[in-house]
Amino acid sequence: MKLFFSPDQLAHNPQKEISDGKLVDAVEIPQRAEMVLNALRALPDLCEAPVQDLGREPIERVHDKGYIQFLEDFGSLWAAAGREGEGFPFVWPGRDFRTDKVPNHLDGKLGHYSFDAGTPLTDKTYGAAYASAQSALNGADALLNGDQHAFALCRPPGHHAGKDYYGGYCFFNNAAIAAQYLRDQGAERVSIFDIDYHHGNGTQAIFYERADVQFLSMHADPLDEYPYFLGHADERGMGEGTGHNFNYPLPLGTAAPEFMTTLNQGLDEVARYDPDYLIISLGVDFFEGDPISQFKLTHTDMPAIGTALRQAGKPILFVMEGGYAVGDLGRNVASIIDGYLNN
Amino acid sequence: MKLFFSPDQLAHNPQKEISDGKLVDAVEIPQRAEMVLNALRALPDLCEAPVQDLGREPIERVHDKGYIQFLEDFGSLWAAAGREGEGFPFVWPGRDFRTDKVPNHLDGKLGHYSFDAGTPLTDKTYGAAYASAQSALNGADALLNGDQHAFALCRPPGHHAGKDYYGGYCFFNNAAIAAQYLRDQGAERVSIFDIDYHHGNGTQAIFYERADVQFLSMHADPLDEYPYFLGHADERGMGEGTGHNFNYPLPLGTAAPEFMTTLNQGLDEVARYDPDYLIISLGVDFFEGDPISQFKLTHTDMPAIGTALRQAGKPILFVMEGGYAVGDLGRNVASIIDGYLNN
Ligand SMILES: [Zn+2]
Ligand SMILES: [Zn+2]
Repeated sequence: MKLFFSPDQLAHNPQKEISDGKLVDAVEIPQRAEMVLNALRALPDLCEAPVQDLGREPIERVHDKGYIQFLEDFGSLWAAAGREGEGFPFVWPGRDFRTDKVPNHLDGKLGHYSFDAGTPLTDKTYGAAYASAQSALNGADALLNGDQHAFALCRPPGHHAGKDYYGGYCFFNNAAIAAQYLRDQGAERVSIFDIDYHHGNGTQAIFYERADVQFLSMHADPLDEYPYFLGHADERGMGEGTGHNFNYPLPLGTAAPEFMTTLNQGLDEVARYDPDYLIISLGVDFFEGDPISQFKLTHTDMPAIGTALRQAGKPILFVMEGGYAVGDLGRNVASIIDGYLNN
Repeated sequence: MKLFFSPDQLAHNPQKEISDGKLVDAVEIPQRAEMVLNALRALPDLCEAPVQDLGREPIERVHDKGYIQFLEDFGSLWAAAGREGEGFPFVWPGRDFRTDKVPNHLDGKLGHYSFDAGTPLTDKTYGAAYASAQSALNGADALLNGDQHAFALCRPPGHHAGKDYYGGYCFFNNAAIAAQYLRDQGAERVSIFDIDYHHGNGTQAIFYERADVQFLSMHADPLDEYPYFLGHADERGMGEGTGHNFNYPLPLGTAAPEFMTTLNQGLDEVARYDPDYLIISLGVDFFEGDPISQFKLTHTDMPAIGTALRQAGKPILFVMEGGYAVGDLGRNVASIIDGYLNN
């Protein structure tokens, strides 16, 4: 299994985030990627492959050009405004507001292009997010070239990012960019199964009206957990996309038995859809030790997840998403991949 | 001229707000009301009148019941969650998200019912906002009983608050509540002219599809200034409200000549509409010394504003909105009212 990771992804190195009305230490930090990298390097069946730059065009197939440009320009806009530290939005176009005009003011732009005050933006964010998307694209290319599986160690993660907004530590939607790339290179149908603890709201929104990309997400019930405002079971898609979106909200405290039942239920839908490729949005914040999450999966529950995914029998691209128990992150991801490869 | 103010309005006493990703000292503080009260008390033509409790029902005519209940319950929800300090939201239902389901989680509720991370919510907010709305209602009652003018010293302010969201230091929309009350008590048409430095987005949204309440707002161009996402000149109303909404965005740096031209332009529209009552959303953050604003009106420009409003020849209810140059606030408001009464 090829592993794709670019050291440029480490450049986004936020110090603080806003949580509970306070500035606290950031949790989506470069060490997350380093821990996973080290653990995966110890697996005999993985090899690191170089990340080619496939350009900005595949990102523009998913994201709004004005949004991409804003992320790229943010550092110079922030400096020109004489601001210090990391950028946080503080006002949003809520109900009744307009989104058809992009404000001139930097605080207006920050709110226009986000949904979350907790995600720090820096002058290094764009480069790291771009590199993270390239890792996903290279993973997709490996499948197109006949590999049966690939691992894109994407960080910053992507599944909360929509067409023209960031949030939840996500800027470019790596899984969506990979899926669109597979379609553009000839795949007829692609499935994305998001097993991160949080709902993949951005990915859902990007493909909600499309029949060519199936989206499934199992996650903590949004009534009780971030991102709160999307991820309910009655969201089945719209227009041509009707019937191609599946949400499996689970109660806080969910442990392995219910988790595995739901995973297999989703994989049954994947089998029915019969995609050319399956992308797994792999967050491991369902681990019991995760500092911001409330599922109860243990270390020993991890291999069975990989085994179940292998049994789906499709070419698989793993795209890394969340997981914040930094000390256990590598071990958990490696256990899943080991379960996938050796069962 | 009767002056309405309840000491209960002082109970909302926030310590901090979030600005630029930092916790800074709050600017919407009880001293604002005290300064205005002291200055108005020095005017010979004003008398303080007691504020009667007209109940929650007139507030429910404008605001969503679930929203009102959330504000009332916030203190106990916050304590039950073991939280400390003041409440700030940090994630919102942006584009693509749902607003038809109210989350169970407190952070979800905070985001669902707001559009702004900078407005602190405390266990004292509901009581103060309720009292502020009662001051506006008592002012409306004075007009209904034949007074030609009244001053409601509303604080917390109201014009950024919509049917079911708070933000911009506003919780209940005092001007909208007074306008609805005038309508419910028999007025055929009411005009609200918002001359605060910031667009009155909440008031606009509340009456946007109605012909019985005309709304006008002159303010800093939202492309360059808070609230950023509403207040453009092309917002003319919808449905039955078409043609009854007027926005006059002005450039940063606007001084008295252009300000007065625009004020009179708006008053011409009021004359054309011929309302039974005129409500002035009176923010004085257009003052050159305001710490968060960028218009250039001086102390000596204030009386002419009052004179122009008197010349409109309608029964007028002044409803206090913004103004953050605390040391000058009383003098500026008193100058406007003095200009109104004595010219
Ligand atoms: Zn997650
Ligand atoms: Zn204002």
